[in-house]
Amino acid sequence: MRAYDIILKKRNGYELTKEEIDFFIEGIMDGSIQDYQASALLMAIYFNGLTNKETSLLTMALVNSGEILDLSSINGIKVDKHSTGGVGDKISLIVIPLVASAGVPVAKISGRGLGHTGGTVDKLEAIPGFRTDLDKETFINNVNKYKMAIVGQTHNLTPADKKLYSLRDVTATVDSIPLIASSIMSKKIASGADCIVLDVKVGSGAFMKKIDEAILLAETMVNIGKSLGKKTIAIVSDMNQPLGYEIGNSNEVREAIEVLKGKGAEDEIYIALTIASYMAILGGAFNDFDKAFKYMEKAIKTGEGLKYMRKLITIQGGDPNIIDNPNILPQAKNHIEIKSDKDGYINSINAECIGVAAMLLGAGRSKKDDLIDYGAGITLTKKVGDKVKKGDTISILHTNKEKWDDVKSIIKDAFNIDKIKIKPSKYIYKIID
Amino acid sequence: MRAYDIILKKRNGYELTKEEIDFFIEGIMDGSIQDYQASALLMAIYFNGLTNKETSLLTMALVNSGEILDLSSINGIKVDKHSTGGVGDKISLIVIPLVASAGVPVAKISGRGLGHTGGTVDKLEAIPGFRTDLDKETFINNVNKYKMAIVGQTHNLTPADKKLYSLRDVTATVDSIPLIASSIMSKKIASGADCIVLDVKVGSGAFMKKIDEAILLAETMVNIGKSLGKKTIAIVSDMNQPLGYEIGNSNEVREAIEVLKGKGAEDEIYIALTIASYMAILGGAFNDFDKAFKYMEKAIKTGEGLKYMRKLITIQGGDPNIIDNPNILPQAKNHIEIKSDKDGYINSINAECIGVAAMLLGAGRSKKDDLIDYGAGITLTKKVGDKVKKGDTISILHTNKEKWDDVKSIIKDAFNIDKIKIKPSKYIYKIID
Repeated sequence: MRAYDIILKKRNGYELTKEEIDFFIEGIMDGSIQDYQASALLMAIYFNGLTNKETSLLTMALVNSGEILDLSSINGIKVDKHSTGGVGDKISLIVIPLVASAGVPVAKISGRGLGHTGGTVDKLEAIPGFRTDLDKETFINNVNKYKMAIVGQTHNLTPADKKLYSLRDVTATVDSIPLIASSIMSKKIASGADCIVLDVKVGSGAFMKKIDEAILLAETMVNIGKSLGKKTIAIVSDMNQPLGYEIGNSNEVREAIEVLKGKGAEDEIYIALTIASYMAILGGAFNDFDKAFKYMEKAIKTGEGLKYMRKLITIQGGDPNIIDNPNILPQAKNHIEIKSDKDGYINSINAECIGVAAMLLGAGRSKKDDLIDYGAGITLTKKVGDKVKKGDTISILHTNKEKWDDVKSIIKDAFNIDKIKIKPSKYIYKIID
Repeated sequence: MRAYDIILKKRNGYELTKEEIDFFIEGIMDGSIQDYQASALLMAIYFNGLTNKETSLLTMALVNSGEILDLSSINGIKVDKHSTGGVGDKISLIVIPLVASAGVPVAKISGRGLGHTGGTVDKLEAIPGFRTDLDKETFINNVNKYKMAIVGQTHNLTPADKKLYSLRDVTATVDSIPLIASSIMSKKIASGADCIVLDVKVGSGAFMKKIDEAILLAETMVNIGKSLGKKTIAIVSDMNQPLGYEIGNSNEVREAIEVLKGKGAEDEIYIALTIASYMAILGGAFNDFDKAFKYMEKAIKTGEGLKYMRKLITIQGGDPNIIDNPNILPQAKNHIEIKSDKDGYINSINAECIGVAAMLLGAGRSKKDDLIDYGAGITLTKKVGDKVKKGDTISILHTNKEKWDDVKSIIKDAFNIDKIKIKPSKYIYKIID
């Protein structure tokens, strides 16, 4: 078998076999296949795509390139959740305690933020003392004992995916649906969960800008999950404005707690409860969406979700007092109000611009090794559909930096305010199961 | 400017600018652009093509990556000729003396053979003493004085093409018409000729198997030549059987001399005289094809062409006695006749198989540094259209090897003999000027 023939076959539009896909991925890992051959194959895949079968085979080849977490010593059906990334996306913080409260073990592996999107691990680390570097034994024990635990991604999972991704990143082959789908699913499958709920974001702040592409990605991932024996459900949800009102790390932890206290923004509550419901259904706690959703609403009303959040923070070494006194969370020293310069309705808030602005204020990373300022971020005081008058505050910047003029103008440009009110987007466009 | 953005732009189907193409080629040469980015761009070009403008710009970028031969000290309009490669293609050996005899300076730079195709430099080196490593001064002096000289390709011409080609060769991006066209034309343009006649071969023994692709390649190359100020004509000629009767190095020299003596195969004579005529027209010796063609026929009849061949061999250090006594050329010791095992008509002779067989007998190289046995080769005793009886000799193998059973069966399979006689292919399908 030769790398050349595999590239040629895919270039000519034929379906690769398991042996060919395994040969290629193994060759990339052991150095027998060169990066320039890998990038040529990636570009050929960009153009000719992969069949569902190839995509599943690629996913398994990526999984098999590294360690596969063995969660078999956790009792029950383990569920995981993944978001393709957005701005103000604190859904994981809300759903982990809610789903655990329903008795379903949540073994969550999360990432860090990069660019305009945040990461759950960073957000939780805004909580003083919170540790996301649990060893495997503690992780498993916590899920068994408390029904929940969250850790950052380990370096041993899917090394071939890391290698491929770093090549895609410099060869303009990132935005290929089968490559995105296999990359995400390989990490989830190597993480050992039995069931996966995927939140595919679509819109100005998401990686996917078009609904049909987001649906295709969601379908592709659900297909991979099912073909590899994992129950998988995907929701395609809106990211045409940031989720909720808060963007940043301390900010988002605070808002997630607000939701668990029965407050928070409507979009966030609806998406979080939907995802939590599907996770609980896949975990076997409910056999019906309405029942699951009603349970989640009740778990908020009764404070059961909040109780689990307190427990999660405590068992992972964080200070649970932040729940009653969020001011313990890191705060920025400067707070700058952004005012509307006209009357009208907010018709859109470019989420990517808001995400970039938050990053520039210190809340995110432009490069992998940048440090994060947990107190930095943005509070939206208005959302899409709101009426504003000239001079109304539309958002507040939080930063420890001394200059923010550039960010101010990014934020102003991100808000599209018009005389005529347009119909806001749906929260969820489609459920794929 | 970033390599990434250039790859992305081409991947998305946009036309690259001169600055972008130059940046990429310069980056490949100075190492600032990685091979994996180059191969990704090559694959994107495979899929999205290049416009005529981009193809010309790429050609010039390849030319500018190295030395450009300055032939300005040669008097007159210098013509060069290039074949895309075939089996038994000894046309250059025939046309150089013919065109020179018409007073047109032929400054010919030729390649060596690889795989199933031969190279003019190897063929000439079968002549005892013949040198193809003339220094630049001698090359120019000989063209000025004798109207002809031939040398092998120097290492300093189009290094970026060599680099790109070696990447294409291992990433399944060789068969892209704009990449083939720019590669060929860059070498011709760097070689300094004023006019170029291209012989694009099509058929079983050629790189191009389909006529429409061969025509497109020819058109693309003529377009590049014209847009870069070189008079260029292409013929698209048949390679569905080997040219003439002889394949191999000594063999082909002998057959070329036969043609100049007024004998030889009809296909070979017709194509050689056509190409020689166009070269002479571009070189300004004639303004009309019929006149040029008639001159070439006469140059054969009067022995003028042969006289120039004798001169060419002499001035490049070879033994001119091979003309009168071809047995001086290296000979193989074994000669094996292949017989037809049925009655019928020869309807095709797979030229690629014959080329591979000749290579296996010692006449060619499977790897770049293989040694050539000048005496090895194949003589076809029948061509397409000929009637054969069972037991008739259809070809003769010449080799110094001791085993030839495998080759014998390749040759037998290459001949397609049937009861019904089909119409043979045309010699020349199209002229593009």
